[in-house]
Amino acid sequence: MKKVALILSGCGVYDGSEIYETVLTMLSIENHGATYQCFAPNVTQLHVINHLTGEVAEGESRQVLVEAARLARGEVKDLAEAKAADFDAVIIPGGFGAAKNLSDFAVKGAEMTVRDDVSQFVQAMHSAGKPTGLICIAPTMAANIFGEGVKCTVGNDAEVAEAINAMGGSHQDCQVDKVCIDKAAKLVTTPAYMLAGSISEAAKGINRCVGEVLEMA
Amino acid sequence: MKKVALILSGCGVYDGSEIYETVLTMLSIENHGATYQCFAPNVTQLHVINHLTGEVAEGESRQVLVEAARLARGEVKDLAEAKAADFDAVIIPGGFGAAKNLSDFAVKGAEMTVRDDVSQFVQAMHSAGKPTGLICIAPTMAANIFGEGVKCTVGNDAEVAEAINAMGGSHQDCQVDKVCIDKAAKLVTTPAYMLAGSISEAAKGINRCVGEVLEMA
Repeated sequence: MKKVALILSGCGVYDGSEIYETVLTMLSIENHGATYQCFAPNVTQLHVINHLTGEVAEGESRQVLVEAARLARGEVKDLAEAKAADFDAVIIPGGFGAAKNLSDFAVKGAEMTVRDDVSQFVQAMHSAGKPTGLICIAPTMAANIFGEGVKCTVGNDAEVAEAINAMGGSHQDCQVDKVCIDKAAKLVTTPAYMLAGSISEAAKGINRCVGEVLEMA
Repeated sequence: MKKVALILSGCGVYDGSEIYETVLTMLSIENHGATYQCFAPNVTQLHVINHLTGEVAEGESRQVLVEAARLARGEVKDLAEAKAADFDAVIIPGGFGAAKNLSDFAVKGAEMTVRDDVSQFVQAMHSAGKPTGLICIAPTMAANIFGEGVKCTVGNDAEVAEAINAMGGSHQDCQVDKVCIDKAAKLVTTPAYMLAGSISEAAKGINRCVGEVLEMA
């Protein structure tokens, strides 16, 4: 049975992992006859967003690993413990946590860097010939991780696409129910909630992304 | 298009709404061609559980409505604003929030009471001939809301079943992929994570629950 490492970045679209994308990814992995293990870095979130108002919750502080545990029913491990040899594929769902806690794209744009533990794990997977799925805003990390020329998509957001190209990536416009595949990088990306208007719409692209990733695994 | 009111109790299995059950319910509602609106009471959670350790996070405090917004991508309204006339059905996912924030079953067992706004809304729906779905631990509220003799299930947990019967309910053992239906109450219940060992297993009973609720709506 193929095993996927899911890298989470908290719990909630504005400061962590997008909840629907994560759950839809888990469901799709199981529906494809595979299993998953969640990981998250054991660090403090960039900030906490009150999801009712959209404002920063001043004075509040939460840990990425602890909030990821909320999204994983407690079943999450420190990313520092993840070993590429134990997995057949890696998938990173979206949510602003990918751009705030796994990288600093939300703050620095094209000047961003990806956390060492994230890039090192994904690069180790890639070196072992194993595929990666990046969902929603997570493909902003692709050029940093896979190097110049890597093809990926966040849908059709001109500003984010420009930043990806500025970092050496090659952004491809893509519809919400489709995926972009870079065969050399074994990288599958899909827009999900960069474009989705509903949970069932997000599910279509995510199902396809998971299917393509597992096909290459 | 049929419209379902979803009543949430926070965000996270141990102190709020069970995330997978909620997302699976939303997805199933859309896949059945219906829509939903989330509601939650604007109150402080009983407590905050660190989902990594399972322990109470001492000194932390979170609001049910604010955390429900996290689970609903910001699209949640105060339960006080919910009008039965606007909806065709109501569904309450599980998670301990149903027993900690919507009722006090987790603290008082068979001596529990249900929050007035929750019971009044569900009773108004019932008076208008509209169906209710209660998932996982949420059926512990059934006897309080619908009165003596109401049939419901939480799977096969002997202790919870005994408490339901002590409150005047009639607990029916039920498998994870099945539902219990009380036709007079128009109440559909399913065990979900009271029994489920995986997300795809939970999805089966929840899909059936949503289907039966919408069939009666």
